[in-house]
Amino acid sequence: MAKVDLNCDMGESFGNYTCGMDADVVPHISSANVACGFHASDPLVMEKTVALCKKNGVCVGAHPGFPDLVGFGRRQMQVSTDELRTMVIYQVGALKTFCDAAGVKLQHVKPHGAMYNMAGKDEQMARAICEGVYAVDPSLILLGLSGSKLVAAAKKVGLRAAREVFADRAYEEDGSLVARSKPGAMITDEEEAIARVVSMVTEHRVKAVTGKEIAIEADSICLHGDSPKAVLFAEKISAALKASGVSIAPMAEIIAR
Amino acid sequence: MAKVDLNCDMGESFGNYTCGMDADVVPHISSANVACGFHASDPLVMEKTVALCKKNGVCVGAHPGFPDLVGFGRRQMQVSTDELRTMVIYQVGALKTFCDAAGVKLQHVKPHGAMYNMAGKDEQMARAICEGVYAVDPSLILLGLSGSKLVAAAKKVGLRAAREVFADRAYEEDGSLVARSKPGAMITDEEEAIARVVSMVTEHRVKAVTGKEIAIEADSICLHGDSPKAVLFAEKISAALKASGVSIAPMAEIIAR
Amino acid sequence: MAKVDLNCDMGESFGNYTCGMDADVVPHISSANVACGFHASDPLVMEKTVALCKKNGVCVGAHPGFPDLVGFGRRQMQVSTDELRTMVIYQVGALKTFCDAAGVKLQHVKPHGAMYNMAGKDEQMARAICEGVYAVDPSLILLGLSGSKLVAAAKKVGLRAAREVFADRAYEEDGSLVARSKPGAMITDEEEAIARVVSMVTEHRVKAVTGKEIAIEADSICLHGDSPKAVLFAEKISAALKASGVSIAPMAEIIAR
Amino acid sequence: MAKVDLNCDMGESFGNYTCGMDADVVPHISSANVACGFHASDPLVMEKTVALCKKNGVCVGAHPGFPDLVGFGRRQMQVSTDELRTMVIYQVGALKTFCDAAGVKLQHVKPHGAMYNMAGKDEQMARAICEGVYAVDPSLILLGLSGSKLVAAAKKVGLRAAREVFADRAYEEDGSLVARSKPGAMITDEEEAIARVVSMVTEHRVKAVTGKEIAIEADSICLHGDSPKAVLFAEKISAALKASGVSIAPMAEIIAR
Repeated sequence: MAKVDLNCDMGESFGNYTCGMDADVVPHISSANVACGFHASDPLVMEKTVALCKKNGVCVGAHPGFPDLVGFGRRQMQVSTDELRTMVIYQVGALKTFCDAAGVKLQHVKPHGAMYNMAGKDEQMARAICEGVYAVDPSLILLGLSGSKLVAAAKKVGLRAAREVFADRAYEEDGSLVARSKPGAMITDEEEAIARVVSMVTEHRVKAVTGKEIAIEADSICLHGDSPKAVLFAEKISAALKASGVSIAPMAEIIAR
Repeated sequence: MAKVDLNCDMGESFGNYTCGMDADVVPHISSANVACGFHASDPLVMEKTVALCKKNGVCVGAHPGFPDLVGFGRRQMQVSTDELRTMVIYQVGALKTFCDAAGVKLQHVKPHGAMYNMAGKDEQMARAICEGVYAVDPSLILLGLSGSKLVAAAKKVGLRAAREVFADRAYEEDGSLVARSKPGAMITDEEEAIARVVSMVTEHRVKAVTGKEIAIEADSICLHGDSPKAVLFAEKISAALKASGVSIAPMAEIIAR
Repeated sequence: MAKVDLNCDMGESFGNYTCGMDADVVPHISSANVACGFHASDPLVMEKTVALCKKNGVCVGAHPGFPDLVGFGRRQMQVSTDELRTMVIYQVGALKTFCDAAGVKLQHVKPHGAMYNMAGKDEQMARAICEGVYAVDPSLILLGLSGSKLVAAAKKVGLRAAREVFADRAYEEDGSLVARSKPGAMITDEEEAIARVVSMVTEHRVKAVTGKEIAIEADSICLHGDSPKAVLFAEKISAALKASGVSIAPMAEIIAR
Repeated sequence: MAKVDLNCDMGESFGNYTCGMDADVVPHISSANVACGFHASDPLVMEKTVALCKKNGVCVGAHPGFPDLVGFGRRQMQVSTDELRTMVIYQVGALKTFCDAAGVKLQHVKPHGAMYNMAGKDEQMARAICEGVYAVDPSLILLGLSGSKLVAAAKKVGLRAAREVFADRAYEEDGSLVARSKPGAMITDEEEAIARVVSMVTEHRVKAVTGKEIAIEADSICLHGDSPKAVLFAEKISAALKASGVSIAPMAEIIAR
């Protein structure tokens, strides 16, 4: 029986600022990417988010980002590989400590925003991130874009990798995401998005933006939880996958040891 | 044979800014209080400082502070006990992760600056800090002012506590430090400072600012490493203690299990 | 004819985080306290908020706070008077520059959160703030709690002061606010709140929490804009004041030159 | 008689951290680039630095940078043009306010670090910065690399521009700086550096790294003040220029109105 993980960013509130509909989306996912205080979150939010995940039986991952709170970690920054590796150790270590204190096993690490995008295409950055994750705990799973440098680097470093796909994004023939600035980059029709995901999970293929079918591996699907519509979609895709005979499971149960 | 620990703040550089003469002072101490990124330091500095301590056989402690970089953690902040507990977990957890990655056992936690001073007199703050430390690792030692609320709270929470004394500060009859604003607060004569420390360690007593002898327990002596003179004093006191038959040892070897 | 100013905090969003219902509350107020980047806001939000105020004919004030983004400026910090004075100059100067660039005259300065509360009772802090404001522009109005040290300091320093009252807070006999921790601190009945405001503005008196009538001067009323209910109340009180023959006007038109 | 401006970064200390030898270098320069709190400095340092410049008769410029304290503004950040323009307005406005309060006229703006380098080659970034400066005060001078996009954008926007050259850097034939990673990028011989500067100022030419003489315009020379050797060089070049018949004057006296 086919299995897939549903992941969503969580714990992105900060101090007086609330962000995301965590309590609403958490019942529909199997893995949460929890912000670690650099692009979003603070220690109190981190503790609460780990508790929320635990209560809902959702696996916890760390979601380290660039030290750019005002830019929400979405702006590219040219950091050195030593800076990158150590900022990953710092953030993942802090979140892991909250997990340990709550009796929760930290499952994975997914770099956030610009760090995820840059490292997906840059071998040195990808390696620095993976070395940081490995330094914290070699049993952690690296969650990166399917087919990206991040996934490749994880394996080289000795980490397991989970391959992520997007329900709402179009793909180029080489398996990379169509840039948001290009026409057709976003899959806006929900039925189409769901059908594509089912195809990626069960048939390991998807139609590229050019119309050609390409091979793709999907261990985890990225969902959003930042609007009522996004939460509703999470619920729908979860139901549709189950109806298609795909079971939802955390990535640790899906990828090979 | 009497034993005492010599501790010093280290790893307080930040990005382009250098602070402290870490490489010069590290040979003369047995325990280092390493900043964790809130009042000073950054991930790269933390990694380097742990490596420096390891190389010199100095035990590592975490030195969490208030989130006040521009104030260097020296300004009082009215944080809630939940904020305080979780900011301790976050910072100590981050440093512990660098220690684990370097194969170094984190020995202790000493709150920094205003956090240390406020919690020394405030039972609720002291308890919040100790609960945070305990949540990270119950085997950690809490380093706090001898006779303070911090030491008392550590024991209540189930942590071992190391009692810190100051070579360069005068004491009130109740064992508290004479406020810096008062005359006679600082012990400026080095010979006198050294004699007082020897007395505190070997005879468990010191002359209060009033002239009366008081009882005091000293597991660890706070040294400074922020000027050539301070480094020289660290060297002198280390030598004087040894000459007086006091051996220097990390606090983990001194306090009861 | 009696006149009063209605003020509300605005521009407290930050990067990806939205806070407050600025566009909804702005039609109902005469003066806006615009955050300056220390406790909330960023340069882009500041420019947009000044433009929003200008478009709605609302007078702009600076709302400087402590450098404590995660605490939203609500946590007491023990800063020196030089730090306080210069952090006021910095923040007010930055906002004034956005005003100047937009062709808007900066009207007033209202310290935010813990800075407002601490300075209301601390003469030295109040003086440091007022000296900072005066250094930026002696024609600025200082908006502070009616009867507080801030209002007194403004006059000593040579600034005009506007006296602020709260619709939703009870008063002690000495004119100070009843602490939120005490019973009866909040006026929760909207009709009562409105009646109290009308009394403060037109009769210069209000019933203290003890039942005794006390004298109080009200140049400006503090409103909130952080919830649909708060915005609705702003609309109601604005209508009720007009119905009672009180006209709404920015504080610059109310207080003596 | 030939004239040139000598500029140096100043006011880069931050809280407890000292950076730069401001008091030593200030006697040898005519213009200071004063940090504004994003990549370095804080409000107290800004006030003190303006006072130091005033006391020494040195003209003050703003030195805005990216919001990256730990990276000292030296790391490239992909900010939007609106973010860039408003972060310039904010920082320049804050420093201008300290100048106004001290009775000092703000002379110029020099973008710092990565902002300077990126905008030197990126027309859109250059324009955004210049629009920000213009919004603060159209009479401000933009100090940018001679021949760069920044200088061109300043003129388009309606600002005066001062063209900066480097004593310690080699030039390509197109007038751009030789990348630091290439051999021969740094001019390490002090006599050669001084001779090159005299040539640039009096003959408007310099020998490129290829050996070919190229035309170059020099209104201001960038000096450093971060080490005893750098301060000594500032003193030497100042003396050598005077001995060569070049007078030192702030850029406002050099460039055309």
